[in-house]
This record gives sequence, structure tokens and C-alpha cells, in this order.
Amino acid sequence: MRWQYTLYVVGALLVSIGMTMLLALGWSVYYGDSAIMPLMESILITLSIGGGMFHIFRNPEAPAMNHREGMAIVAIGWIAAALMGALPFWFAGTFATFTDCFFESMSGFTTTGASVLSDIEALPRGILFWRSLTHWLGGMGIIVLSLAILPFLGVGGMQLYKAEVPGPVAEKLKPRIKDTAMLLWKVYLLFTVLQTVLLLLGGMDLFESLCHTFGTMATGGFSTRNTSIAAYDSVYFDTVITIFMLIAGANFTLHYNVLRGRPAVMFRDPEFKFFMSIFVIFTLASTISIWGNNYESLGDALRFASFQVASIMTTTGYATADYEIWTPLPQALLLLLMFLGGCAGSTGGGIKCMRIMLLLKLAYQELFRLIHPRAVTRVKLGRHNVEPEVLSSITGFFMLFLGLFILSSFLLAAMGVDVVTAFSAVVASIGNIGPGLGGVGPTDNYAHLPMMGKWLLVFCMLLGRLEIYTVIILFVPEFWRK
Amino acid sequence: MRWQYTLYVVGALLVSIGMTMLLALGWSVYYGDSAIMPLMESILITLSIGGGMFHIFRNPEAPAMNHREGMAIVAIGWIAAALMGALPFWFAGTFATFTDCFFESMSGFTTTGASVLSDIEALPRGILFWRSLTHWLGGMGIIVLSLAILPFLGVGGMQLYKAEVPGPVAEKLKPRIKDTAMLLWKVYLLFTVLQTVLLLLGGMDLFESLCHTFGTMATGGFSTRNTSIAAYDSVYFDTVITIFMLIAGANFTLHYNVLRGRPAVMFRDPEFKFFMSIFVIFTLASTISIWGNNYESLGDALRFASFQVASIMTTTGYATADYEIWTPLPQALLLLLMFLGGCAGSTGGGIKCMRIMLLLKLAYQELFRLIHPRAVTRVKLGRHNVEPEVLSSITGFFMLFLGLFILSSFLLAAMGVDVVTAFSAVVASIGNIGPGLGGVGPTDNYAHLPMMGKWLLVFCMLLGRLEIYTVIILFVPEFWRK
Repeated sequence: MRWQYTLYVVGALLVSIGMTMLLALGWSVYYGDSAIMPLMESILITLSIGGGMFHIFRNPEAPAMNHREGMAIVAIGWIAAALMGALPFWFAGTFATFTDCFFESMSGFTTTGASVLSDIEALPRGILFWRSLTHWLGGMGIIVLSLAILPFLGVGGMQLYKAEVPGPVAEKLKPRIKDTAMLLWKVYLLFTVLQTVLLLLGGMDLFESLCHTFGTMATGGFSTRNTSIAAYDSVYFDTVITIFMLIAGANFTLHYNVLRGRPAVMFRDPEFKFFMSIFVIFTLASTISIWGNNYESLGDALRFASFQVASIMTTTGYATADYEIWTPLPQALLLLLMFLGGCAGSTGGGIKCMRIMLLLKLAYQELFRLIHPRAVTRVKLGRHNVEPEVLSSITGFFMLFLGLFILSSFLLAAMGVDVVTAFSAVVASIGNIGPGLGGVGPTDNYAHLPMMGKWLLVFCMLLGRLEIYTVIILFVPEFWRK
Repeated sequence: MRWQYTLYVVGALLVSIGMTMLLALGWSVYYGDSAIMPLMESILITLSIGGGMFHIFRNPEAPAMNHREGMAIVAIGWIAAALMGALPFWFAGTFATFTDCFFESMSGFTTTGASVLSDIEALPRGILFWRSLTHWLGGMGIIVLSLAILPFLGVGGMQLYKAEVPGPVAEKLKPRIKDTAMLLWKVYLLFTVLQTVLLLLGGMDLFESLCHTFGTMATGGFSTRNTSIAAYDSVYFDTVITIFMLIAGANFTLHYNVLRGRPAVMFRDPEFKFFMSIFVIFTLASTISIWGNNYESLGDALRFASFQVASIMTTTGYATADYEIWTPLPQALLLLLMFLGGCAGSTGGGIKCMRIMLLLKLAYQELFRLIHPRAVTRVKLGRHNVEPEVLSSITGFFMLFLGLFILSSFLLAAMGVDVVTAFSAVVASIGNIGPGLGGVGPTDNYAHLPMMGKWLLVFCMLLGRLEIYTVIILFVPEFWRK
């Protein structure tokens, strides 16, 4: 571990974070709201700390990053970003405690979208913009992490994507990360512009269009309205956001290929097919279940079901309906989707479609092996064999995910939070979704949880976002040796 | 598949079932209750059908059973036993529908203990005895299945136990099953006598002592009282039953070794250590949580917590308290225990401690591999390496268990059952536990569920009891070919 190098990179990251705060300041100045001073203070502090670290730890030799440093930079970088990101909330007096400021900021940067805000609309525009921007920045981070860093660290089966990452093939991690990041960010930016324009065309103002686009493309879920997307009650907005949630929940290398004129790659991709099949099947099942029970017309049932299925499955967390008063089936389906999550290489969280797919294939293979004890079988993905190491890596990840879910739920329950709220708050945090069930349902928020519980959930969001391993490994003493 | 041989064995099984019904008839005659005629009719039908099959399909060559036949006999045998077992309920008019009769009988034979009875104490003694006896018979069946048959079929990692099965080492399945069964049934019988005597010493009458012993040793959970074990409100009974639930939830080959003068085998066994650690830790955590909140004295908190943890973890399902009004932590802990279950080779259900242990080790191994990418590591159990095939077998089982749980919960929710009730009724059925949460909590029963839901849960109980594979494989067309 070269601490110096790690801190240098984190310093550079903080400088970028400080610069982007200027965008929020711009909106604050434009609207002349009360967040001008708080934002200026936050920018000053963030740039000073970041710039200081950058200059103190700067190393002209610019060495290549190794795996350990990669992991440490990611974890420390995310925590540092969330800490600085909490400053605007703190200086603007948005919350009474720093815990709540940090919760909201971490929820933003991890693209979770769980909020401790009761009255969102009462906030100054500059703060609201910053809140949504943390999503968008977190989304940029996660694309690089999941497609440019994790495949090379061999985390939880992500090594499957080694060959699929766009950009030049390079052995050194650093140039590869840089090139891949640039290509994917262009795709991310393109979709961001596209969705913003579509929302503008529907009559949403620029401010709200941007904020909701940030929340969608990052599969975050922060809205500028107290009742989330339901506030607009518009079929057009619902449709646009549903489509872009699905885009954001798909693998960005597929989008890159489509944009490069290779759309067949997308429709041949087994994970994408699985993802879309789940979306279609779950939407239809939910529609049939709520039609006539919760909604008079089939059109309404389909509209609200498709939005909510896309929102939870991509781990966005936007709401157009209170699904807790729906019939039991869609509730059960949404609960499962909280675990599933989006595709690998998307901005979505959860366990990811790819891993669930391979685990199901593994189960099927075992069944096959019982009937044909002497047959030599391999789990396949499309036309490729999946290495046994990848499968045990994925099994390990799945068990870690469940273990973290169970342990955290116990801790939250031990703080007196009821079972349904505890379990769903934890899965909504680890899966980076936002709303859960019970006391943290789509019409509630996380403000009423005990302070210790909020810190626990902040930790869960971070672990979930960084694919668990990347954070847990920092607590293993052996990681720091040598 | 030699159908003739399969039906011959099932016929022999039904004859034994018919003979054991005579025991219930004895109690009916002794108490002079209204179940004499219904039991006699049931015995006549069961013996006729069983005897008929036995004689028609008898084959003097007595061939050795192969794997396919083993699986078919187990699945068909269990269903046939439950069908005949439903007859006394049907002829005695215990329930209005045959669905309910079959539900209660299958719940008995699978040692689940989920009941559709509202007023247990109103039933004639002969029927109550038969109801409890189905548990005990099911328990005998499961010991043979899990220790003498499954290890040789390589189902869900059970091949680990191949070497540990007592009795002479034989290549042929049939003599081995016979010898193993006899040894283990002696152990089962010994504990049954021991617990009955201990309950008698505490002042329970012989009828209730036997019924509750059957429910305990089979980890079933049917009681002769409406309020289960709570009806006695006795520290002595609670203690005796807690200890015997733990005995029934441990591997019977360990008991066999202890009785043969090798107690060290038990305390060296990694699964038993895991099982007891979970029991102690979960009991202590629950005790601390309910002490002062639900119970004034520490003694009461410990008494009720230890009973309930043992009851759910061993998948017995007896109740001395309504845990749904406890603090959230023990509720969350009990919910997890529903998935965990007892040890492999016990009468308990659930996923089993062994499998969860190995999956946790697998997750840890992956973490280790990330830090030391070049290290060659193997998952170990005690001093032995675990083969990769066993691990993927266990992963496959785990995914099948979860898949079945999720799919069945969806189906139950689609019938309009609320989410908490649907999820917990399904896990309580697949795990062969009995009581769940919500509408099927410890103070409720399964009577109010829709008819289709009851058939679904009957199927879940059977699948859970036969380690899923054994049943599912019958639905795979390839299984029947050649």
C-alpha cells in the first residue's frame, strides 16, 4: 500500500467534487435562494482539502496502481465524497444532525435514494440540485468501478466482463481505466442529455428535468417533489422515466455497442434478455393482479405496474403509486426485485441479474447431474463456458450479500425497529434502492429511524454499492500486510 | 424403472401404516370415544390396498434397488402414506373437506406440524393419537432417508455423509439401508421411551406424554392442546421438551456413536458445534431483548427464549409463548432460524446447518482468495477437504430451496394471502416447521387459507421433507427414459 498515492488520487477526486458543487451554486444564484453561502462554504472547504491532498501527496513519477490501491482508493474515495457532499446540507441547516446530512449525502453518492427529508419542496433549489447531482456523480463512479476496475480485481464474478470492456486491451490498470471511463462517460452523458430534453419537451422545467434525469440515469431516486414522480401524474413522464430507468439498469457496454452500430450485441446478450424478460413477466403479473382491485382500467394498471417494476428492479426507487396498498402479489414481486437488481455494468444495485442467472443455471446443472451422474456438464453463458472459479466467486458474493442482509437486519431489529421495516430498510440500502416496506415504504422516509440505525444503513449502502468485497476486504488485517 | 418393484415396496409400507393405526384404535377403545369405527374403516382400507399391492407386485427374485427406484419409492411412499393417513380424519368427520384431511396428514408425515384444526381438544383421543403418530412414523422415515438413502444418491451435498453412516459397508443399497435403518431406529426408539418416561415423571398422563414425545422426537409439533405446550405452563416440561427437541435436531449417527461409548465424536463434529453455538447465541440475544420488555424476570425470559429458539431451529414448532408480540430482534432471529433448520441426519427440516456452514466457508474462501490471488485454498470441514462437487451440489440445493420458496410465495400471494403470511407460511412448510408469522403465527392455524393454497403448501411440505431434488426429479422427463 502506497498511502501517498492513494491520498493523491482521493485528493484529485475531491477537487472534482468541489468543482461540480459550482453547478449547484449557479442554480442557487439564479433562483437567489438561501443556499448561496452554504454552498460557497462547502466549495471552499472541499477544494481546500482536496487541493491540499493533491499537492502534498503528488508524485511526479505517477506509478501504476496495483489491486490493493485500487480497492482502497474506491472505498476511501466514496467515503470522502460523501463526507464533503454532506457539507452543503450541514451549512444550509437542512438537518439537525450531521448524521442526517451524511445519510442523505451517502444515499446520493451510492445512488440509493433513501431520504431522511420530510418536506423536500421546502429546501432551497441549490441544495435540491446538489442532492440530485450526488446521484449523477455516484453513477459516473459506479460505471467506472463496475466496468473498468472490478473485472480486473476478480470481485464476485465480475471477471466475466474482462473481455467485454471497451477500449484498448492493456495490461496496466491505469491507462485502461482512463480510456474505458472516457468512453462510458460519453454514453452516460448522451443519455443524460437525451432524457433531459425529453422531459423538457413534456413541459417539465430545466431544473426539475435535470434533477429527475440525474435520479434516473444513476438509478438513484431522489426527486424534487414530496410525492416523487406521482406529483406530475403524467403518462408521458411516467413512460419516459420508465424507459430511461431500464436503460440505466442495463449494461453500459451494451449501450456503447449499440451506439457504435452493433445493436445485435444487445439482443444477443443473455443477461439483457433475462433482465427484460423479468421486467415483462413481473409487469404483466402485477398488472393482472392490481387491475380491477386497485385500478379500474387496464391502462392504469399497466402504467403503474410497469413504472414500479422498472423502478424497483433497476433499484431507482421512484414512485408513482403507494404499492403497499396494492394486492399481495405485486408486493411480493417487488420485494424479490429488491434483491435481484439491475444488470452488471449498469448504475443499478442489488445482487445483479448476471449473478442470479448463473446461480439458477448452477441449480439446474445439479438437477441434471443427478439424472446423469456420469455426464460432464459445464454452466454456459450464451456460447461460452463459465469457469468454476467464477461460479464459486458468485456463490461467495451471494452468501456475503445474504449474510450482510441478515446481520444488519438483526442489528436494526435489536434497536427496536419492527421486523418488516428492518428487513426492507436493510435490503433497500444494500441494494441501493431507496424505499422499502413498512415504516420505510414509498410514502415514508428514513428520518424516524434511530441514529445508530442510520449509521448502520449508511454502511450498508456503501457496502452494497462497492460490491461488498471492496469494503469488507479493508477490514481484513492481511490486506494491509506486506 | 421397474414399476412392479416400486409398487411392491410401497404396498409393504402401507401394510405397516395400517398396522400402526391399530395403536390409535387401542386408545380409542380404551377411552371409548367416537373414533372406533372411523379407525377400523381406515385400517381395513389401508391394509386391503397395501396388502393387495404387496401380493400382486411381489417378486420372489427380490432384485436390488437402483437409484431411480429409490427416489420413486420415497416420493410415492410418502404420498401414499399421507393419503391413507388422511382416512381416519375423513371418516371421523374431523374436517369438512378432504383437502383439510390430507393437509393435516401430510403435515404429520412430513413432521411439519402445520395444522388446519381450530379446536384440537374437541377431537376424539383415537384421532389425536393417530395425528401425533403420523409425526413419529414420518420421523422414522426421514432418518432412513437422510442417512441411508440420500448419501448414496448424492442429493444436495448429502454424499458427505456416505462415510459416516453406521452399519456394515456394502455396495448394494438394499442391505445397507436395512442395517442402517435398524440401528438408527433403535436410537430413535430409545429416546422416545426416555422422553415419555420423563414426561410421565413430571405428571403428564401416558396419552399426552406419548403424543408430545412423538411431536418432539420427529421435530413435528402437533400437540393435544389448543395452546400447545403453553397449556401446561411448567418449567419442567419446557426444559425436558427443549432438551429433546435439540436431541431430535442433531445428527442421529452422533447419538449412535455416543450410545456406543464414543461421546467425543459428538463434540468434535463441526456441524453439531455450529448447531449448538447458534442455539446458545440466538437464545442469549433473544433473552436479553425480551427481558424487561416482555418478561419481568431474567429466568422467564431465558425459559421462553430457549424453548422458542430450540423449537423453531429444530423445526419442531411447539410454542410456549406468542413470539409475535415479542420485541423485533427475537422475531427476526426466529425468522432466520426457519431457513436454517436442524442438522443433516436429524428429523429436523430446513436448509440444514451443514449446508449453511459450508456456504459460509465458501464465502470466506472467496474473500481470502481476493487478498491472496495465487493461494490454493480448499474448503475444509473439520480436518477433511470438501470436494468442489459437494460444494456446487450444496449451492444448487440452496438455490433450489430459495427458488421454491420465492415461487411458492408468489403463488400464495397471487391467491390474495398477505405478504408476511404468504412468505412465512411457505418457509414454515418447506422447512417443515409449522407456525410462521402473520396469519399463520403461533396462535393461529392454516384453516383460513384458500383451498388451492393448502394444496400448494402440502406440495411444499413434501418437497422440503424429501430435500426437494427427490420430488422435483420425478417431474423431469429424462428421469423416466431408458
